[in-house]
Amino acid sequence: MAHKRIRIGMVGGGDGAFIGAVHRIATRIDDGFELVAGALSSDSDRALASALRLGIDQERSYSSFSVMAEKEKQRKDGIQAVIIVTPNHMHYPVAKAFLEQGIHVICDKPVTKDLNEALELKALVEKSGAFFALTHNYTGYPLVRHAKHLVDTGVLGKLRVIQVEYAQDWLTDQAENTDNKQAKWRTDPEKSGLAGCLGDIGTHAFNLACFISGQKVQQVSADLTAFVNGRRVDDNVHTMLRFDGGAKGMLWSSQVAPGNENGLKIRLYGEKAGIEWAQESPNELWLSLFGEPTQKITRAGHGAGEEANRLSRIPAGHPEGYLEGFANLYVDIAAAIHSIEAGADVSSVQGFIPSIDDGVDGMKFITAVLASSANNSTWHSLEDSTLLKPMTSN
Amino acid sequence: MAHKRIRIGMVGGGDGAFIGAVHRIATRIDDGFELVAGALSSDSDRALASALRLGIDQERSYSSFSVMAEKEKQRKDGIQAVIIVTPNHMHYPVAKAFLEQGIHVICDKPVTKDLNEALELKALVEKSGAFFALTHNYTGYPLVRHAKHLVDTGVLGKLRVIQVEYAQDWLTDQAENTDNKQAKWRTDPEKSGLAGCLGDIGTHAFNLACFISGQKVQQVSADLTAFVNGRRVDDNVHTMLRFDGGAKGMLWSSQVAPGNENGLKIRLYGEKAGIEWAQESPNELWLSLFGEPTQKITRAGHGAGEEANRLSRIPAGHPEGYLEGFANLYVDIAAAIHSIEAGADVSSVQGFIPSIDDGVDGMKFITAVLASSANNSTWHSLEDSTLLKPMTSN
Amino acid sequence: MAHKRIRIGMVGGGDGAFIGAVHRIATRIDDGFELVAGALSSDSDRALASALRLGIDQERSYSSFSVMAEKEKQRKDGIQAVIIVTPNHMHYPVAKAFLEQGIHVICDKPVTKDLNEALELKALVEKSGAFFALTHNYTGYPLVRHAKHLVDTGVLGKLRVIQVEYAQDWLTDQAENTDNKQAKWRTDPEKSGLAGCLGDIGTHAFNLACFISGQKVQQVSADLTAFVNGRRVDDNVHTMLRFDGGAKGMLWSSQVAPGNENGLKIRLYGEKAGIEWAQESPNELWLSLFGEPTQKITRAGHGAGEEANRLSRIPAGHPEGYLEGFANLYVDIAAAIHSIEAGADVSSVQGFIPSIDDGVDGMKFITAVLASSANNSTWHSLEDSTLLKPMTSN
Amino acid sequence: MAHKRIRIGMVGGGDGAFIGAVHRIATRIDDGFELVAGALSSDSDRALASALRLGIDQERSYSSFSVMAEKEKQRKDGIQAVIIVTPNHMHYPVAKAFLEQGIHVICDKPVTKDLNEALELKALVEKSGAFFALTHNYTGYPLVRHAKHLVDTGVLGKLRVIQVEYAQDWLTDQAENTDNKQAKWRTDPEKSGLAGCLGDIGTHAFNLACFISGQKVQQVSADLTAFVNGRRVDDNVHTMLRFDGGAKGMLWSSQVAPGNENGLKIRLYGEKAGIEWAQESPNELWLSLFGEPTQKITRAGHGAGEEANRLSRIPAGHPEGYLEGFANLYVDIAAAIHSIEAGADVSSVQGFIPSIDDGVDGMKFITAVLASSANNSTWHSLEDSTLLKPMTSN
Repeated sequence: MAHKRIRIGMVGGGDGAFIGAVHRIATRIDDGFELVAGALSSDSDRALASALRLGIDQERSYSSFSVMAEKEKQRKDGIQAVIIVTPNHMHYPVAKAFLEQGIHVICDKPVTKDLNEALELKALVEKSGAFFALTHNYTGYPLVRHAKHLVDTGVLGKLRVIQVEYAQDWLTDQAENTDNKQAKWRTDPEKSGLAGCLGDIGTHAFNLACFISGQKVQQVSADLTAFVNGRRVDDNVHTMLRFDGGAKGMLWSSQVAPGNENGLKIRLYGEKAGIEWAQESPNELWLSLFGEPTQKITRAGHGAGEEANRLSRIPAGHPEGYLEGFANLYVDIAAAIHSIEAGADVSSVQGFIPSIDDGVDGMKFITAVLASSANNSTWHSLEDSTLLKPMTSN
Repeated sequence: MAHKRIRIGMVGGGDGAFIGAVHRIATRIDDGFELVAGALSSDSDRALASALRLGIDQERSYSSFSVMAEKEKQRKDGIQAVIIVTPNHMHYPVAKAFLEQGIHVICDKPVTKDLNEALELKALVEKSGAFFALTHNYTGYPLVRHAKHLVDTGVLGKLRVIQVEYAQDWLTDQAENTDNKQAKWRTDPEKSGLAGCLGDIGTHAFNLACFISGQKVQQVSADLTAFVNGRRVDDNVHTMLRFDGGAKGMLWSSQVAPGNENGLKIRLYGEKAGIEWAQESPNELWLSLFGEPTQKITRAGHGAGEEANRLSRIPAGHPEGYLEGFANLYVDIAAAIHSIEAGADVSSVQGFIPSIDDGVDGMKFITAVLASSANNSTWHSLEDSTLLKPMTSN
Repeated sequence: MAHKRIRIGMVGGGDGAFIGAVHRIATRIDDGFELVAGALSSDSDRALASALRLGIDQERSYSSFSVMAEKEKQRKDGIQAVIIVTPNHMHYPVAKAFLEQGIHVICDKPVTKDLNEALELKALVEKSGAFFALTHNYTGYPLVRHAKHLVDTGVLGKLRVIQVEYAQDWLTDQAENTDNKQAKWRTDPEKSGLAGCLGDIGTHAFNLACFISGQKVQQVSADLTAFVNGRRVDDNVHTMLRFDGGAKGMLWSSQVAPGNENGLKIRLYGEKAGIEWAQESPNELWLSLFGEPTQKITRAGHGAGEEANRLSRIPAGHPEGYLEGFANLYVDIAAAIHSIEAGADVSSVQGFIPSIDDGVDGMKFITAVLASSANNSTWHSLEDSTLLKPMTSN
Repeated sequence: MAHKRIRIGMVGGGDGAFIGAVHRIATRIDDGFELVAGALSSDSDRALASALRLGIDQERSYSSFSVMAEKEKQRKDGIQAVIIVTPNHMHYPVAKAFLEQGIHVICDKPVTKDLNEALELKALVEKSGAFFALTHNYTGYPLVRHAKHLVDTGVLGKLRVIQVEYAQDWLTDQAENTDNKQAKWRTDPEKSGLAGCLGDIGTHAFNLACFISGQKVQQVSADLTAFVNGRRVDDNVHTMLRFDGGAKGMLWSSQVAPGNENGLKIRLYGEKAGIEWAQESPNELWLSLFGEPTQKITRAGHGAGEEANRLSRIPAGHPEGYLEGFANLYVDIAAAIHSIEAGADVSSVQGFIPSIDDGVDGMKFITAVLASSANNSTWHSLEDSTLLKPMTSN
């Protein structure tokens, strides 16, 4: 069978951006995509310079995402999917533009800047018939898949306790007052939404807990803080969780915890076993069957299951990392798009790929956490969420 | 200077007990005590058999702690201090009996079965003029002392976030329905008090957080669960914390987390640095000055301070453990008692030794957590605590 | 500046091969290369099928590497470099064919099947004027570069002790008698050369020690064993080392050590400091300045130097792995080839890229180790090496 | 059964000594011994001051070990055993004096200053009918016992490879030229014997490898170095090993490896499994059955065997350390002496307690290593060892 790469475009991700480059590498690792168009910056000179550096033809470097959507739609060799890597507040309008052209959308998280937008986007996705993927990339790590498999197949028994955390330290001081571009937009409610740390990394922790456990969070009791003087969004998140399957949990995320780089870590405990996985050592999953010695399961090693092995490229002991985990999402996205092009219904190809529903869940979580924290940590249901005003620093 | 061992007696701690043996080893390690009397069991035959095995003279093996208190008081060579290692509900009456004789008391935690008793005990201690120590033994680890030192001397800057946890797995199934004596009394509200996991190990985590941070917990928002069918006390504790110095925290303790043995772990983050310490690797303290590589400080190694070194017996790399940490409390207790005997006022010798006030704080914590959890996790102040009814399993 | 990918071809690496796929991913990660030709298998049907799957045009899928070398040379858009990923015994003839056409060569290790071939290849490289790179990929890890930097800048002081090891377990039993294709050729002296474990992974350990230390091994005292019954090459290597800068070392490599996946680990100790790095946790480098706490330096984190940062794609705490380390070699190779095309002399572009000299050194090491082991571990100089007969299992 | 402590005396171990204090704590932990006599220093004032501080009666503080041996023999309540914790060169004369009085001897390692003395001591022990124990304390760690058990019961299959190391850093600079008393005598061939690092810690590594494997070292090929300028004994040991059961190994010990405190670590690999244990994390033993995930066996945890549990005092997760491991030797020594007093033959009570034969083996090892190193690393049999002259630094 001859090789057929999927033609993609990108919105956002010009020079100096972090996550755009990550997506591009992730699409290249398994050679399933070809980047042929872009609106890489709202500044058209910068957009073009970035495009040329990336091997995009000049005529397919756009300064406007809406023009890009239209023009690409008209081309015979137009893009099959767009990757959206703008700041959060632009996710919705960009996704809308491409969905309306029937172009598949791959969107960074959090899905939108607030819940209303997310719900509207969901309606747009459904109407469009196009495929939508949300890049909660941590679900792509092979041993995260295996963790899910262990839960799904009952190895842990009924889940009781879920402890998840995501700690960083890069916002320990007032980085937004320096020339740190990332810090600037991520702490600006206009661009990132009302949630700071909560939206940036708390949603990853939330998503991971739901993904592995197969349970939904019903209620949260939360205490948000903006520790850094003058900060306009939260930089530390304390939340207790109640899951719909009976499990209880805690979620901690912080960007003011010195010594933590990307400390995403999850532990799940059931009636029969416990598991533990940390993103900074992603090639190891610890499994403790109650009453037996703890086992160290390694990626592609003994005890790693079929799904984990499907997403492994190299033998155990040769570490795969963040980019390969990210690329695994793209492996599944490529297969989904090929299936659709081969006639499959868009509703049948989602598999483990995070969907618009996961995006909506994330926004419900953010909304409920903001609400609970504003109400002195009262338990707040994810289904009752209502929008709130921005918090102020203490 | 000739060697002078302190004469001690013990109540509780007969054959089959766990913590009594630990105390005895801890008193022997540095040779500061001599066990000469005991009421080791309420069963007088068992008490005597245990006593003889421990080298206690037959005439000083008592079947009644109150008789022991009286008789020992009358002897010229009577005990100078008593160690109380009974189940929790007996702490109060035993302590009372010895305090009324002016005999120093060393009491296991939690200090009493409820807050009222703790407050009464505090009054008794103050009235007695005797010395009272509560064996929150984890504060005796050298690197815990060094952690406190780092906080106290401002290395961390103003504290923001405190994450503490203590997880075990031994109550994952219905151990109380087997012949496991420890499981039986520790899950019996009549003997352990209304708090299960909360009182047994949650108080250790609480105490450690307060000890190192130098801050008091003002409020808690808690969610307790008894996961195991039929269990009469909590076996999982989720709590958010607000400290009086402005720090916020989370405390998790659990006895149903497979793979966890004695997973007591604490992390503290301030404006300038973060530290991390885990009881299962007690000879290492991780210090992250913001903007610098994380340092591994080892017990008796480079960077361990004076106080940690004072409590170290052997060079770095030769691990000291739980028993040595416990013994460090006894090192300080011995010094305190010698000081008192040399004329020092009892109010001047407490130093880092956990006191009746720590015991009261622990009971306030337990009471507030029970109250908050019963009120759907409403924030509850430790100063407003009121007693509650036992919880039932879900 | 517009993007210009280097056109490459590949010899070997068809379906079922391990290392060919690794090279292809490594060339794609940073988008510096385009695979346009191949002789992927000696079986022409398999070669073609593999080529098509990889997006190579049918007309540039060759069944003969020599035909490929000639034809590609004649094309205007012919390959600029060839990647050789065949079994070891084919490295020499393939490299020769392309070098004679003046095509740059990127060759997997060990460079040839014996020292004589390596010396002949060195002559060919020099005569050709083409660029030659040997993919000792572990030198591409950012923190390996930083380790070298610490040594080079005197942070460790004069080196005294170097401990290096590379342990695996996949040949613990008679895997060569199963259908394990990798095991078959790697234990077949006709295909892998006289060295088994020694050539397969021992050379990596050797190369890494020399790379970081900047010292050459002068002498070895070795004890090789083939533990598995019937095995035709060594599966365990014990070697003591004497370096030309005065350091002494030990090298252990094994393929019969259950529990080891790719346990490549190096420790270097000098008069002023020690460092430690392990391939399975490549994002951490441990630095112990004598008399200070050990520091954990992380990739892209605080304390990682310029060279390490140059080769990092993503922030600290998001692990990069084996493929990214491998890709770093290709980053440097791409820059070298671009420089040559821009007129630089081939002798000026090698930088940290392993060269034919490293290949020759590796073969001298293999030869000397075989000689020493055959002579009851007598110290053997790498400059006196002579070829030896295959060993037999014990 | 009433408690009966064994009466012991000590030679050496006065103020400022390290290992004497360790032995005393080890004897106290399980309350099996009572220190009643001592010749703690050759300076009689210091001896007396130390003795009083330790609670020894003035009349049983001796300034001469030979007087002590005689006097204690004459007492009805004389010591039953003596602990020898002098510098190495005094082990032989002290042991001789007590053995000649029929008093049991507990002697620190290495057993004597050279092999001849060791062989003479062996003759003396046999003639005396007294019990002799050599405190290779690392064999007392519970999980070392379990490691031995796994080997003995065939879990590893036939052993192939044994890698053992013991690295420290405290002699990285010229500590012997400071007021470091330990450094002075341990680098003085008159007091420590011809072996420096080799005798001080290399023998521990050697002993541990033999203890766990149940194999004897037949031959060594060694390369000793004194890296520090002016040092009179080796400070780094590189040795290859051949065992009598067919295993091959490497032993590295060093006292000039910055960042290493007491890095004693052993790995054993057999046809069916591998194990790994490190002294600095003594409560964990890693077991890798070939083809299965690695298991973490914890002291007193699931999978720790009977022998390990017999020597555990407290539950899994509460770390026991160096002192408890040391005390385990004394647990067995106490039982042995009680058995002898109850009529058992001295030849029947040794069990796992290191014996004079282990001491002789250690001296043969030292002698063979010195010989091999002096002969350019020629393999040297432990049975052919002959004495050598001191080495000089390079």
